[in-house]
Parts: sequence; C-alpha cells; structure tokens
Amino acid sequence: MKKIKTQVGIVGAGPAGLTLANWLRKQGISAVILENRSRVYIESRVRAGLLEQNTVDILENLGIADRLKKEGLRHEGVNLSFNGDRIRVPFGELTQGRNITIYGQQEVVKDLTNAWLDGGGELYFEATANKIEDIESDNPKIYFEYEGEQSVLECDFVAACDGFHGLGRKTMPEGSYNEFTVTYPFSWLGILANVAPSSEELIYAYHENGFALSSSRSESVSRLYIQCENDDKVENWTDDQIWDELEIRLGTPGWELKRGPIFEKGITPMRSYFIDNMQKGRLFLAGDAAHIVPPTGGKGLNLAIADVKHLVDGFTAFYKDANTTELDSYSETALKRIWRAQDFSNFMTTLFHKHEEHGSFGYQLQKAKFDYIKRSKAYRTTISENYVGMPFEAFE
Amino acid sequence: MKKIKTQVGIVGAGPAGLTLANWLRKQGISAVILENRSRVYIESRVRAGLLEQNTVDILENLGIADRLKKEGLRHEGVNLSFNGDRIRVPFGELTQGRNITIYGQQEVVKDLTNAWLDGGGELYFEATANKIEDIESDNPKIYFEYEGEQSVLECDFVAACDGFHGLGRKTMPEGSYNEFTVTYPFSWLGILANVAPSSEELIYAYHENGFALSSSRSESVSRLYIQCENDDKVENWTDDQIWDELEIRLGTPGWELKRGPIFEKGITPMRSYFIDNMQKGRLFLAGDAAHIVPPTGGKGLNLAIADVKHLVDGFTAFYKDANTTELDSYSETALKRIWRAQDFSNFMTTLFHKHEEHGSFGYQLQKAKFDYIKRSKAYRTTISENYVGMPFEAFE
Repeated sequence: MKKIKTQVGIVGAGPAGLTLANWLRKQGISAVILENRSRVYIESRVRAGLLEQNTVDILENLGIADRLKKEGLRHEGVNLSFNGDRIRVPFGELTQGRNITIYGQQEVVKDLTNAWLDGGGELYFEATANKIEDIESDNPKIYFEYEGEQSVLECDFVAACDGFHGLGRKTMPEGSYNEFTVTYPFSWLGILANVAPSSEELIYAYHENGFALSSSRSESVSRLYIQCENDDKVENWTDDQIWDELEIRLGTPGWELKRGPIFEKGITPMRSYFIDNMQKGRLFLAGDAAHIVPPTGGKGLNLAIADVKHLVDGFTAFYKDANTTELDSYSETALKRIWRAQDFSNFMTTLFHKHEEHGSFGYQLQKAKFDYIKRSKAYRTTISENYVGMPFEAFE
Repeated sequence: MKKIKTQVGIVGAGPAGLTLANWLRKQGISAVILENRSRVYIESRVRAGLLEQNTVDILENLGIADRLKKEGLRHEGVNLSFNGDRIRVPFGELTQGRNITIYGQQEVVKDLTNAWLDGGGELYFEATANKIEDIESDNPKIYFEYEGEQSVLECDFVAACDGFHGLGRKTMPEGSYNEFTVTYPFSWLGILANVAPSSEELIYAYHENGFALSSSRSESVSRLYIQCENDDKVENWTDDQIWDELEIRLGTPGWELKRGPIFEKGITPMRSYFIDNMQKGRLFLAGDAAHIVPPTGGKGLNLAIADVKHLVDGFTAFYKDANTTELDSYSETALKRIWRAQDFSNFMTTLFHKHEEHGSFGYQLQKAKFDYIKRSKAYRTTISENYVGMPFEAFE
C-alpha cells in the first residue's frame, strides 16, 4: 500500500479542488489532489462559463488569470427579454464597477491544473477515492486506488471537492445534515455552435413558448439554450427546429439571430439542492458536493470558489495562529452566500421560464416583475449585485 | 320615476367614489354618488388604515387632509421580523422622503363625505343601484331604488366604485375581461384593542407559528393580526390565547407587548383578484370593483385612489379638450400599478406567512430573502418604494 502525507487532502480536481490547492500553496500549506478522471477528461468537460467579479479577483490574486484576462469576454451588462421586449441591465454602473467575465470552466480548469503542476503540485489523475476515515481524529485518511494499487493519503484535513455524486457527502455521518431539494418541471436543451454570438452580452428571454438564453463561449462559438420538457430528447429536435425556436423566443425588432453549425447538443435538468451543514470533524465539503443551483443565475462555479475562499481562511488561521474559529464556522459562513445564490437562482428561473399558463395570475406576476425591472433602479441593482456576486464583506 | 342628470354618475361612496366626486368638482365636472348603505354604516366600516404618500398628497391637494395631518400617524419606517430577529427599514431615507400615514379608512371616508356634502355635493345614501344601461352610448343610465321609488341617474359616464360584489363589474359584458384570482391557504385573525401600540411603527413578523402584524389605529388603539387557518373561527380563541400568540410571534429581546381590552375580533381571508380590463364603453371600474389584494402590503385603499387619479385625468381631458386618449387608455394605465401592487402584496404575503414547512427549501428561501433585506440597501429600497407607493411618473 502506497502512503502519501500532506496537510490538506483534496478529493476532486474541479475548479474548487484546484483553486483550493493553488491558494493553499500561496499560504504555505501543503496539499495533494486526488482526481478519479483523466486530465484530458477534466480539461474538456464543458460546464459553466460565467465568472463573477469575486472569482476573477481570486484567480487574479493567485496569478492564474493571464489567459482569462486575454481570452475571457468581460460583460458589463445583461439583456433581459419578456415576450420580445428587451432591456439591458448595466451591472457595472449599478455595482461600482463589478462585472462578469465569460470564460469556459474547462479553461479555468486548464489554467489551474497547469499552475498547480508547473509549481510542482501533486495531483493524481485516475485515482479513485473509495474511503475517507478517521474524520473525527487529527489524522484523517483518504483511501484511493491508483494504478491498480490501493493507496492512502494521510492528512490533517480532508476537503471534499468531488461533486454531487462524490465520496465526500456520502462520508458525512447520517443525521449530520439536512438536505433541501427542488426539481424544476422543465429542462434546458443546450447547443454549442460554430458561429459568432448574436449579441455581445447574454440574453435571458421569457417567451410564451418558453425560456431561451443566448450566451457564448468565445468570439466564434455561441452557446444557446431553450427550455424543453424534462422527458425531452436531443433526437426530438432538428438543428433547424432549434434555431427557429431560438429566433422566436429571443427575437426583438431589429435583432438577428446568427445561425451556424451545431457541434454539441445536450439536455440539462434544472435542480436546486443544498445541505445545511458542510463539515464534520476534519472533513469539509465544497462546491457541487454540497450544493447545486439551476444554471439560470450562473452561480455554480462561483459558489464553489467562494466556498474555497472560506476554507482557505480557515486553514490559514489554523496553521498560522492555531485558531480554529473560522474552520469551525466554515459551514455557517459559506451557507450565507449559498442561501443567497439559491434564492437568486430560483428567482431567475421562476422569472424567465414558462411554468405558469400564459395569461394566468402567476404569469402576470412574472410580467409585473419584468416591468418593475424596467421601472426601478433599485430593483435593477438587486439583480446586478446578485448577478455579479456580492462582495465577501456583504456577508460578514 | 325620479330622474337626475350629471356628468359622471358614481356608484359607491367608499374612498374611490368619494375621492372621485371631490376631485371632479375641483376640475369643474359634476358628479352624483349613489350609495346603497347608510351614512353611519360607511363611516364606521373598519377597513385598511395605511395611506401611501400618493394618497396623502392627493387628499392634501383636494384640501381634505386637515384632520389626517393632525390625527394621522406618520411612519418613516417599518419593522420586519423573522423568528425574533427584527430589523427596521427606513422608507424616508431610501425614497427621498416618501412615507406612509396611518389613518383609518373610515376616517378618510368621513372627511371625504363631509367635504362633498359641505360643498353641496349630491350623495344618495341607501340608494341601491340595480341596473346600468346604455354604456356603449353617450348617455348611460344608472337605475336605482331610493326611498321606495325606482329612479334613474342619467350621465355621460358611469364610474363603478362599488366594491368587489358591486353592480359595476357585473355590468361588464361577458368576454370583455379576463379575471385572475388566488386564494391563499391562510387567513388573518385581527383584533382591535384599547391599548397604546406596542411599537411606534408597524411590525411584520414571520414566525414558525405563523405570521403576525402589529399595527395601530391611533395612539390609544392597537390593531394586531395573527395568521390562522382558513376555517378558523373567532370563538376558537380566547383573548389571552391571542395575546400569548402575538407575544411569541412578534417577540424580540428587549421588547414588550402591551395588552389591553380587545373590543373587536374578526377573520379576514387572504385573496388576490384582478381583471385585465376595467372599462367598457362609458363604464369605468375603480377600486375593489376591479381588484383585491391581500392586506399584507396595505395596498387596497391606495390602489383605489390611484385608479381615481387616472379617471380624473381622463375626464378632465375629455371635458376640457374633448380628448379621449386618456380615458381610452384608463385600464392600461391603471393596470401597470395594479400589477405592481399585486406582485408586491404577493411578495409580502409569501415572505412573512408560514406556508412552507419550517425548515423546508421554501422556508430557506424565505429566510434567504429576509437575510438579503438585512444585507442589501438596494433590496431595502425596493421594499420601501413599493411600500410607500411608487410615484405616478414611475409608470409613465
């Protein structure tokens, strides 16, 4: 049995695990990452691509934002549309210059992986963690299979950044948390297409046919979504049908949808999930391991990075000052933002999806909210500050 | 058959009808009011008591605010409580000095009635309107029974300010509007008590036992409410039980509930209702005849007065300039504010009532919203601007 030692053992080389490792190194704390997939897999896994101001600031402070700054698309506003009536909400103006950057999660993962490995960091790919033990002791252990051999990572702390289906949450003892979940009665049919985005900034659209979202991956790749049924299938839609539907739902006078070759299609369910305690003994959960938000608010990746920020604060206080206060309250601290993000994601999902009959009372409330966005600077500000992500100080 | 003529025939001497009559007189337009109840009845009917800034401004401009200014309680903020955690939202600071005034609806009705009659206005009490005819002609007629005699009020226009159960909406032809309605799964048990209010400003409280509201009628009369079941009965509650429950739900450290003799108890259902067209030919609906909001946002009376403002604009343009544009778009104009009020009332109702299981996902979203109120000035501003009522310019 191979045995490795480190201060913080990290399960999962997604954005949370990789950011944590890089950040801990900066703080002089050692870490080792175990990732059950291959490097090629994690670097090509297409996920979110919307980075909040906080996330960009963190990556920049870590010195891992050169490519992001060059290739990322900075958006200073978002377009919101309701039955063809489109308005723009300017974040920057309403939040003292806080904005978002469009940069694919897989690109973030590439940059973080390179930085970690280039700096001599240990990262075991295709290393399957199968047991986390002794989390109530000072020496928890992560057992994993690597190159056909059962191995163990001994550490002071375990950070489970291993996603919704990971080992981390399964290791939390029964009764140590409550879970909350909502499955929305609709899904997203998403496409990637080789065509320049039809609008510089994102367009969220309510339409009586259903929600649509126009986004981008880069200056030459469009990312677009339409609301579909939960039991819908990619095969039910021809490319032309998808483009036609996007044109209808996103349309507004004077605007044209750019069509191009679709090279990826997929259906994403909409789910909200979180647990009310993200730690037990020396085991800490971060990112998707502890919470899932529907993608409507673009919060998933950013919440993961925010969790990591609180973990780094905690580990730093522990190793520098032998102070456990921040670690002890990690869950409580992180949950403040998670609740906010859950509420905002639910708000955006409810506002822009067709879930009430067109013309019903519920529909009228959706329309009333949209009209209020047009009328109230304060309301536009709430959308902006949630969308770009509230500063960490706001939750203190 | 007695026959009367006027320019605007008004059905209903509630706040809407009386404000309309007084305001039309100021514009040099004649009006007659038919009211099926007695003067004593309408002047003692206890209803809302929260006047928005707009409403106060209108009554002041009409010269009918002397007593209101003297006896009304001006509130520059509201207290919001969540499981005993109480915060204050200062309207005035967040809305450039717009505030609310607590002054019973029956007092408004008394002032308006006095003003109308003192100025020689015609108002027939116990006059039961039973038919409105020829609304598509230039000379609609309101038939009514008065002192045992069938009579008719001939007019240029009919303003139906006759409440939810009135003749006005029933006269609208089938298919001329759609209606929207929600009945909430809870009611309010309300009391009036001879005791000074326990807090200067209102307290809206969510508590795991249910909603509670601390309000006042005057400096010596408290008005308090607790959420109860829809099929609950006043008889199910002793006075002590009501006070005990108020103390639990409204409580926060350092605060004391003042108890006193309860002299009125009643149960109010919570309902949202509105129609999407408030006019047909020369018939115009205003106030409760066209919309009901749950009392949580204190919008009922204020919406009625806002409707009247738009009607006066329309009648004035018609009689001064023979311009029908504003009358033609009355419904469209009024509905903008009505939708806003429906959404806000629904928001306040949803936020502060127990309707999700304590600890459920829905409950967590309620808590997240409450926490966000604490954290965001912009969010507090949205609550303030809705609560004090948005200026008329905001809807132009």
